Amino acid sequence: MNNTFTKLPDTVMLDEAAPALVIIDQTLLPTELRLISLYSLSEIWDAIKKLKVRGAPAIGVAAGIALYLASHAILQKGVTDTTQFLDMLRADKDYLASSRPTAVNLFWALERMYKTALSFIENGGTVTACVDRLLAECKAIRDEDIASSKAIGENGLSLLTDGCGILTHCNAGQLATVRYGTALAPIHVGREKGMSFKVYCDETRPLLQGARLSAYELVCDGVDTTVICDNMASQVMKDGRIQAVIVGADRIAANGDAANKIGTSGVAILAKYYGIPFYVAAPTSTIDVTLKSGELIPIEQRKADEVTEMWYETRMAPEGANVFNPAFDVTPNELITAIITERGIIKPNYTENIAKIMEK
Amino acid sequence: MNNTFTKLPDTVMLDEAAPALVIIDQTLLPTELRLISLYSLSEIWDAIKKLKVRGAPAIGVAAGIALYLASHAILQKGVTDTTQFLDMLRADKDYLASSRPTAVNLFWALERMYKTALSFIENGGTVTACVDRLLAECKAIRDEDIASSKAIGENGLSLLTDGCGILTHCNAGQLATVRYGTALAPIHVGREKGMSFKVYCDETRPLLQGARLSAYELVCDGVDTTVICDNMASQVMKDGRIQAVIVGADRIAANGDAANKIGTSGVAILAKYYGIPFYVAAPTSTIDVTLKSGELIPIEQRKADEVTEMWYETRMAPEGANVFNPAFDVTPNELITAIITERGIIKPNYTENIAKIMEK
Repeated sequence: MNNTFTKLPDTVMLDEAAPALVIIDQTLLPTELRLISLYSLSEIWDAIKKLKVRGAPAIGVAAGIALYLASHAILQKGVTDTTQFLDMLRADKDYLASSRPTAVNLFWALERMYKTALSFIENGGTVTACVDRLLAECKAIRDEDIASSKAIGENGLSLLTDGCGILTHCNAGQLATVRYGTALAPIHVGREKGMSFKVYCDETRPLLQGARLSAYELVCDGVDTTVICDNMASQVMKDGRIQAVIVGADRIAANGDAANKIGTSGVAILAKYYGIPFYVAAPTSTIDVTLKSGELIPIEQRKADEVTEMWYETRMAPEGANVFNPAFDVTPNELITAIITERGIIKPNYTENIAKIMEK
Repeated sequence: MNNTFTKLPDTVMLDEAAPALVIIDQTLLPTELRLISLYSLSEIWDAIKKLKVRGAPAIGVAAGIALYLASHAILQKGVTDTTQFLDMLRADKDYLASSRPTAVNLFWALERMYKTALSFIENGGTVTACVDRLLAECKAIRDEDIASSKAIGENGLSLLTDGCGILTHCNAGQLATVRYGTALAPIHVGREKGMSFKVYCDETRPLLQGARLSAYELVCDGVDTTVICDNMASQVMKDGRIQAVIVGADRIAANGDAANKIGTSGVAILAKYYGIPFYVAAPTSTIDVTLKSGELIPIEQRKADEVTEMWYETRMAPEGANVFNPAFDVTPNELITAIITERGIIKPNYTENIAKIMEK
């Protein structure tokens, strides 16, 4: 554990000299901060599979860098034929895409990189020049992610006051993006401006991303951070410790209903009961205007042993008991005070105002 | 694990022949069901201290039996002088009372037993006869507990329908009493009548009494039991799986505000949002009419390592993060549909109706 609380490095980085993808190995947090350099595609595939890098935006950036590394390796093998180059690159893209079969940002970044190569070659570019073009593209993906997170942070910060108490759920932080995060971006951006906050992190069972990841990155940023069990949020709110709740989102429907980590809808209901504003912070890429409402978002069920056995020294529920383990829930728009995006803050009426911001 | 789902034995029993206190060792649940016989006061002191027996009513009954065993042991030593007998019995009472310094039922049962002995001796009883009197008294405490739990079960059952879905939090079950429990009593009593229920157990972080204990006793009673993380209650309610929430209480104020395991107030707020009845089941001995409202109930803070380290193979939150670990919260009366007691069901207006039932 880094007890000096110096700022964390970026979650996903490109080492151009090596070249290599450099990531914070998140499976070792919160007990050890270790940067690992990944040179081969199989190492990267494995890192994504094993959640050493996680969080949709971070995975997207890692995948972009990975496909640049793939193109570089193909060139190193002496391939100069453009058709052969594209064939090999496509195979690498498909291989990387198999690391997490439901990760939309993974597919999106791989497609963007591959289409960039395809278009570049089709326009008469050489393999060598195409590799340079892909280097620029993966940096662009990274820089866009940082810019988007920072803009979410700036916009969200306008809703907070110096010294206020904030509750968050799961990890929609720097560790899920390259820098700043989404839900935690206003806090990190505020810290850069010398502001302070008291942040309460729901531990977020069963995978404990709040305790392990959010608390870690906040402590590293010098934030007054308190871990609570998920069921303590009501008491913390009742005590008057919370002036705002900020959470991330995996998917937002056209009417503002927001899917996020299981437990989010419960926190929103508590916030409403206690009269505390509840904010969802996410890039506009999270908004799916083809979904009329959150009712259309399917809820993934995950394995029982995450609840009963994972982390534990011994099994924590009797054999014979069922386990219900939904990964997400949907918070209805009526419970959301505002949606914070990189393009601005969206307030109700969401159907109208989401349509407006998506036209920009 | 008992996979045959035969009914559990009583949580606390008296083996008259030995004589010994026989308990289910709850520290071994849910992986092993083991009955242990405790012969000496030091064994019993240790079992209470280490939570091998827990739950206020169960501890009270165990303490009653323990003081009978103490009187029996004093007699076995050949003590026939009544003053010496009472002196030794008082020392044993004080020793047992030190096992859990905040357990009201422990003190209550010990005092009741000691006062029974004192009164019996003062009225001219012999030591030998007094030991018999204490045997009868500890059985009475046990039988009253069973009768009270069963009455709570019968009364609560009138609020449920066969096959309905029930959510509970923590363990206010058979394992916290001798038989039936409080919050879970309606379910166990219903099972005796051949009814079935689908029960969802909040795992109840940090100590996991829901996953370890409630789920265990329900599975043993053949109930369709599902363990969920605390933060999944909102989704389970939204799905329409829950027709009633039933929880226990540690202390109920004169206005119906109820202190119970941390997280209970959050469940009550969710139930209100989803329009699901929220019941508190507890014996009238839990009602403290000297407390005007729940605001006067102090919230005990417990150690941080219960949240960050207990059960886990490795530490689950960063050094440098604070931990907030309140043991209880208070559910305001406005969120409680009814309070189920052994004397009947109390509905709002609570201040009025609690006063009435306490006069009975």
